Amino acid sequence: MAERAALEELVKLQGERVRGLKQQKASAELIEEEVGKLLKLKAQLGPDESKQKFVLKTPKGTRDYSPRQMAVREKVFDVIICCFKRHGAEVIDTPVFELKETLTGKYGEDSKLIYDLKDQGGELLSLRYDLTVPFARYLAMNKLTNIKRYHIAKDFDIAGNFDPMIPDAECLKIMCEILSSLQIGDFLVKVNDRRILDGMFAICGVSDSKFRTICSSVDKLDKVSWEEVKNEMVGEKGLAPEVADRIGDYVQQHGGVSLVEQLLQDPKLSQNKQALEGLGDLKLLFEYLTLFGIDDKISFDLSLARGLDYYTGVIYEAVLLQTPAQAGEEPLGVGSVAAGGRYDGLVGMFDPKGRKVPCVGLSIGVERIFSIVEQRLEALEEKVRTTETQVLVASAQKKLLEERLKLVSELWDAGIKAELLYKKNPKLLNQLQYCEEAGIPLVAIIGEQELKDGVIKLRSVTSREEVNVRREDLVEEIKRRTGQPLCIC
Amino acid sequence: MAERAALEELVKLQGERVRGLKQQKASAELIEEEVGKLLKLKAQLGPDESKQKFVLKTPKGTRDYSPRQMAVREKVFDVIICCFKRHGAEVIDTPVFELKETLTGKYGEDSKLIYDLKDQGGELLSLRYDLTVPFARYLAMNKLTNIKRYHIAKDFDIAGNFDPMIPDAECLKIMCEILSSLQIGDFLVKVNDRRILDGMFAICGVSDSKFRTICSSVDKLDKVSWEEVKNEMVGEKGLAPEVADRIGDYVQQHGGVSLVEQLLQDPKLSQNKQALEGLGDLKLLFEYLTLFGIDDKISFDLSLARGLDYYTGVIYEAVLLQTPAQAGEEPLGVGSVAAGGRYDGLVGMFDPKGRKVPCVGLSIGVERIFSIVEQRLEALEEKVRTTETQVLVASAQKKLLEERLKLVSELWDAGIKAELLYKKNPKLLNQLQYCEEAGIPLVAIIGEQELKDGVIKLRSVTSREEVNVRREDLVEEIKRRTGQPLCIC
Repeated sequence: MAERAALEELVKLQGERVRGLKQQKASAELIEEEVGKLLKLKAQLGPDESKQKFVLKTPKGTRDYSPRQMAVREKVFDVIICCFKRHGAEVIDTPVFELKETLTGKYGEDSKLIYDLKDQGGELLSLRYDLTVPFARYLAMNKLTNIKRYHIAKDFDIAGNFDPMIPDAECLKIMCEILSSLQIGDFLVKVNDRRILDGMFAICGVSDSKFRTICSSVDKLDKVSWEEVKNEMVGEKGLAPEVADRIGDYVQQHGGVSLVEQLLQDPKLSQNKQALEGLGDLKLLFEYLTLFGIDDKISFDLSLARGLDYYTGVIYEAVLLQTPAQAGEEPLGVGSVAAGGRYDGLVGMFDPKGRKVPCVGLSIGVERIFSIVEQRLEALEEKVRTTETQVLVASAQKKLLEERLKLVSELWDAGIKAELLYKKNPKLLNQLQYCEEAGIPLVAIIGEQELKDGVIKLRSVTSREEVNVRREDLVEEIKRRTGQPLCIC
Repeated sequence: MAERAALEELVKLQGERVRGLKQQKASAELIEEEVGKLLKLKAQLGPDESKQKFVLKTPKGTRDYSPRQMAVREKVFDVIICCFKRHGAEVIDTPVFELKETLTGKYGEDSKLIYDLKDQGGELLSLRYDLTVPFARYLAMNKLTNIKRYHIAKDFDIAGNFDPMIPDAECLKIMCEILSSLQIGDFLVKVNDRRILDGMFAICGVSDSKFRTICSSVDKLDKVSWEEVKNEMVGEKGLAPEVADRIGDYVQQHGGVSLVEQLLQDPKLSQNKQALEGLGDLKLLFEYLTLFGIDDKISFDLSLARGLDYYTGVIYEAVLLQTPAQAGEEPLGVGSVAAGGRYDGLVGMFDPKGRKVPCVGLSIGVERIFSIVEQRLEALEEKVRTTETQVLVASAQKKLLEERLKLVSELWDAGIKAELLYKKNPKLLNQLQYCEEAGIPLVAIIGEQELKDGVIKLRSVTSREEVNVRREDLVEEIKRRTGQPLCIC
């Protein structure tokens, strides 16, 4: 889907350079500025490399996907989409670009990561950084107050005014279902709440204006040590060391619902209205997660901060835990594979009247998961089938091409996944070998005698057993043996 | 899939403007040239429009896809992918960009339509124009001589050295299967052969160097009259009028296998080696198409030319025929919805040693088909379900949220597509109304009495019938009633 949008927009980049210059300031001063930059760049970049020899390759930074890699991707996407549908989600799609203003001011410090482009006709465009902000823009634009949707097979969100923590719990349930189905090893979902973080910053003595930037520092605790985070807070962000230490006492704690209850009794934190709301909601969330049977997968972790500005409530992030097989290779986890949270203010930022649509969602780290699944399959030396063919239509004798064509056509029309070798007179051995290589489980063999008797010889490739099946029963028999539904849409 | 590649590449466009200038010539002269262009453009474009007010919209030329539109797209893609898999195809993907040299010289006059971009690091890039040239590049790069694959759910190709016309016939079979399954009205597949066209040009007196450009003129015959085509040939392309008239006598003919046989007897055409080969192959093709049961859908049409340079043999194009309902609205057909042909030389153009890999393929015009299906559904005022939810978990009494959460979780874990309203105490009427609106066929109702009895009340939304089902039988009963397989991946 996304490709079409990408193409539409890329087409417009044609000639964007000259128009872009015009658009940005359209002044002679600017042009002189550009001249300066160009000469500087020329000096930096050294000799002109544009006249290199033609090499057979894909553009830098891009790659092809082989059938094997695509089979892995498809399996991962199937698991994810299957789960989203099981939870009743609709699907939408939005363009790869958004107006620059749409994305501005939604991400906080992560906004460094937004790529700006220029389009013709006076529109400043940026590449979308996530699917959440475009989704919020979509809701506001279409005046929707209520939707459960997924987006490009990796983002799931529930928008609407509902009773507390029910949609939030469903998002965590979905995350756990997907990660369990993918069988990529043990995982843990860290949970926290933006309100608890803000309340904690307040009682530790952080000024309001520094909440977001300190939040962004805390968010690094899964990658670097507390000492480093403290240094950043004190050195770069100007926090008093004793304030940082107070934060340190909190953010190094994690646990289950008992930690929630303990903090509800914390003399300072329990005095902060925001923190109290957050802790109350987390308590309710844990009740629902217990009913969903996933409470053992969840860890309340005060160091989880999620750097994005738009979160307003519960936040979460799933990490893979070290599996025994990986001991010695990876430190303690292999990083985040899914994440999300509640963002109740984002749609209101787009609505002309500021009407709020509370939202909660999650995003699956599909690229990371592809790599993990690919690696695991390679380690296991597991064979990945790249087609779903159920049967090869073959013949043992010569001059039976017409009969093979007729039979394979009958099978296609009946919804059986079937192939034949594109040879007039292929050897039976070659036909059987093709099945071995492609993992095709059955061979339907036609011979003069079979034609006379109105039967087809059905051979199992692995067991080598052969039985004669009446031609009119062949489809049913193939369906039964392969356990696949008929392929008719 | 394609999106990731698009993003990867787009990321690189950041700052491409300045580097692009550097790369192209990197000279002060160029910069002065650019300055001139800019000033000219500025004058043409009028006042600076970059400071426009923020409007809630998508970038120009792009659009969102609503759940309803996505449901249509998904159905169309399902039909196409289902058919490709039924025919044993693997799937690959390639980047949205290719090196400019990869695309250069493959398309002929259509090459005007290729969009060039510039990347950093001295690589000149172009947007891919079709999926055929990237596929050929992929084969040469990976030294593959044998593959049957599809690409982004719309392109299907068979590469390899096989006996004549067997893969070609399968491509036509696939085209017919897909267009029949889509139920978008009657269609016809026009077939011709590049060798017949070239032979015909030769015997009519066209010089070799003009074959491709005349081919491209003939290709317009489905849109404009013979008179206009003739004018282009004579006026713009310098053909003698009598040569054009000779071409006219041929290209206005179409028919079935009998026309092939008639032309095999044509005193001039049968003297041309190329034409004779093409006609011989078409005769064989018709035999196979008869075995596949699709010969009635095929028309040998001498005006079909397919402008792309890379075709070497059979070419084809499917057009929708006027349906009675559309009488008066559209002239005779609604244009091409699928097309393809044989391209035996393309892979060799990429192989350093020029090794040939014969290929034949087809491409489905998915955007056109989406519009047609969407229009048809709107005309029929047909309701399109945008979710697949089988059952809503509901309660008639208050204080049963926990029980609803437990039951819906059980159903999800068993592979049933289920939802619940995110309210603590929703009214039964609201729950039933939600089912009506979303097209959910079943409601599983929990009440105090049912909990005591270990049953669930299962209600059909349309018939309003209610029966008590034992809780342990609920999954089986929902599966049976909805006829859907369990949603477990």
